[in-house]
Amino acid sequence: MAERTDYEIFEIPEFTLECGTTLRPARLAYKTYGTLDADRSNAIVYPTWYSGRFWENEWLIGPGMALDPERWFIIVPNMFGNGLSSSPSNTPPPQDRARFPRINVRDNVEAQYRLVTEQFGIEHLALVTGWSMGAGQTYQWAVSHPDMVRRIAPFCGSSKTSLHNIVFLEGVKAALKADGAYQGGWYTEQPVGGLRAAARVYAGWGFSQAFYWNEVYRQLGFTSLEDFLVGFWEGFFLDGRDVNNLLCMADTWQQGDVGATPGFAGDVTRALASIRAKALIMPAEKDLYFPPEDERWAANHIPDAEVRVIPGVWGHFAGGGANPDDTRFIDEGIAELLAAEGAPLG
Amino acid sequence: MAERTDYEIFEIPEFTLECGTTLRPARLAYKTYGTLDADRSNAIVYPTWYSGRFWENEWLIGPGMALDPERWFIIVPNMFGNGLSSSPSNTPPPQDRARFPRINVRDNVEAQYRLVTEQFGIEHLALVTGWSMGAGQTYQWAVSHPDMVRRIAPFCGSSKTSLHNIVFLEGVKAALKADGAYQGGWYTEQPVGGLRAAARVYAGWGFSQAFYWNEVYRQLGFTSLEDFLVGFWEGFFLDGRDVNNLLCMADTWQQGDVGATPGFAGDVTRALASIRAKALIMPAEKDLYFPPEDERWAANHIPDAEVRVIPGVWGHFAGGGANPDDTRFIDEGIAELLAAEGAPLG
Repeated sequence: MAERTDYEIFEIPEFTLECGTTLRPARLAYKTYGTLDADRSNAIVYPTWYSGRFWENEWLIGPGMALDPERWFIIVPNMFGNGLSSSPSNTPPPQDRARFPRINVRDNVEAQYRLVTEQFGIEHLALVTGWSMGAGQTYQWAVSHPDMVRRIAPFCGSSKTSLHNIVFLEGVKAALKADGAYQGGWYTEQPVGGLRAAARVYAGWGFSQAFYWNEVYRQLGFTSLEDFLVGFWEGFFLDGRDVNNLLCMADTWQQGDVGATPGFAGDVTRALASIRAKALIMPAEKDLYFPPEDERWAANHIPDAEVRVIPGVWGHFAGGGANPDDTRFIDEGIAELLAAEGAPLG
Repeated sequence: MAERTDYEIFEIPEFTLECGTTLRPARLAYKTYGTLDADRSNAIVYPTWYSGRFWENEWLIGPGMALDPERWFIIVPNMFGNGLSSSPSNTPPPQDRARFPRINVRDNVEAQYRLVTEQFGIEHLALVTGWSMGAGQTYQWAVSHPDMVRRIAPFCGSSKTSLHNIVFLEGVKAALKADGAYQGGWYTEQPVGGLRAAARVYAGWGFSQAFYWNEVYRQLGFTSLEDFLVGFWEGFFLDGRDVNNLLCMADTWQQGDVGATPGFAGDVTRALASIRAKALIMPAEKDLYFPPEDERWAANHIPDAEVRVIPGVWGHFAGGGANPDDTRFIDEGIAELLAAEGAPLG
């Protein structure tokens, strides 16, 4: 899909990151859907996922859906590193490309917080929701701003990146970097060999064993396994994705850990226990890198949390919007959560 | 570990492969343990696995174990492509390196069959067993030679490589090839960047999510996740492994399919139904590329088969010999199988 330009930029002139470096400025690209109420009580934040752009969140937004722009004011902030917000690919020298600083999940949430409060004057969020790394940002919102977030619906993600997940990402990163054209990040043309290799590495993780066994990729219009690997996966990685950007976001992902929020001294269970938002957590039954058992563990530490497993064979991509059954499941969950009383206003 | 040289070579002067090419000669490296009975009834074949050498099978052989050389005559044939039997790395021009022909699981079994019958005059095998690709060869033995194989104990493997497993291997292959030093297979030094990248890709697959969650790698003496990734995984791939060899064996693995045996017209269920051997199938509970459900499916088509799942978090490497509990489980299963009446002599 061609890049879209219908978005806004929130610029923070000097934005000091958790790693100690300052972006001058940080640029947060975002798009809103719907209208903010007079009392500013109908705002929802819906962050993007690994390599996702705002338009790739839109499948969960629409008339008649839980995220209905007629009812809600939905803000989709783009993650740093995704190529629209500040990223290795779009930051001028000297902080460009391989010198782009390390970004933490908390850096994303802090920039989003400033957008929400400074730009829109919003004091409470009806909901934060997101898929995958978007779920990670969702958890971080609830921990960083417990009195502000009334509900959270993280799906196919986690509050702390598991060691296995870190290892999976090591494989993706190693494939991206193995291409000699990568040149330590100083390439002048995309190292497409690395992008294609990473796509093939990712392919086995994104969908479940049973998805492939049942050749469900045929439902997406692909006519053979190789057709799917090239058409879907290589196409996905070649669709405007940049290697340094992918490495930047993988690093953000690997660092994900609400326990590292200041005040919790690395104790993730204590951080989870501090969440005041009402939580509906939706892992996918056969997600290979965010398995439901991990999310059950997290839910046990959150005061008001329900785990509702998305059934079926789509694995992680149950949350990607390509399977109508899964989309309906997630949409219904969010609708129910929004209809329920959230955490009291702080 | 240093390469060992204490093995024999069975040479087949002209060995025509299923792909149509002829190796002149094919060299099958093997090692035997124990003594063949006068009536030649105590022979066991125990093939190697992806990248494994005969000495890496020895953890399951020993006094007091099921595979006791005092009782059994155990033949460990090395798979083509493993660097000891005919391989890209050890075949002289013009069939060397990138020109080494494609090898099928059936080619391995055929060469092993000729070794067993021509070299040793063996007419029946008490057992064929193996881990991973060794399990694939085990199934192929039972289908290709139903009247010869009395028992099979495939563990952590499959009779037909699943589509998901093929995808997982695509990721490994892509990482190996992404290194520019690979040069289409015509490298003069090992492309170690590709080997290290493939090691990181493999790391997430070899052990389960829970293995990493519980940091079980500490039991193996590794002191951090990165220590494990470098010390175990990169060390594993750098331990005498050759990129062309790894690609050759990955191709063999991807082609695995007993249904493609002549006479079955691609019908894997009919091929499984033809097995006369008594089968004890041992998948590992959390194996990410040979999940137990796939093996239950296979067992449903084999006349005399039991599935016994290896419990625990070690995933695929439950069958690798590094965890004493898993080794005991497999050893006890094989002991029980050997004590039971096998298929009648054909």
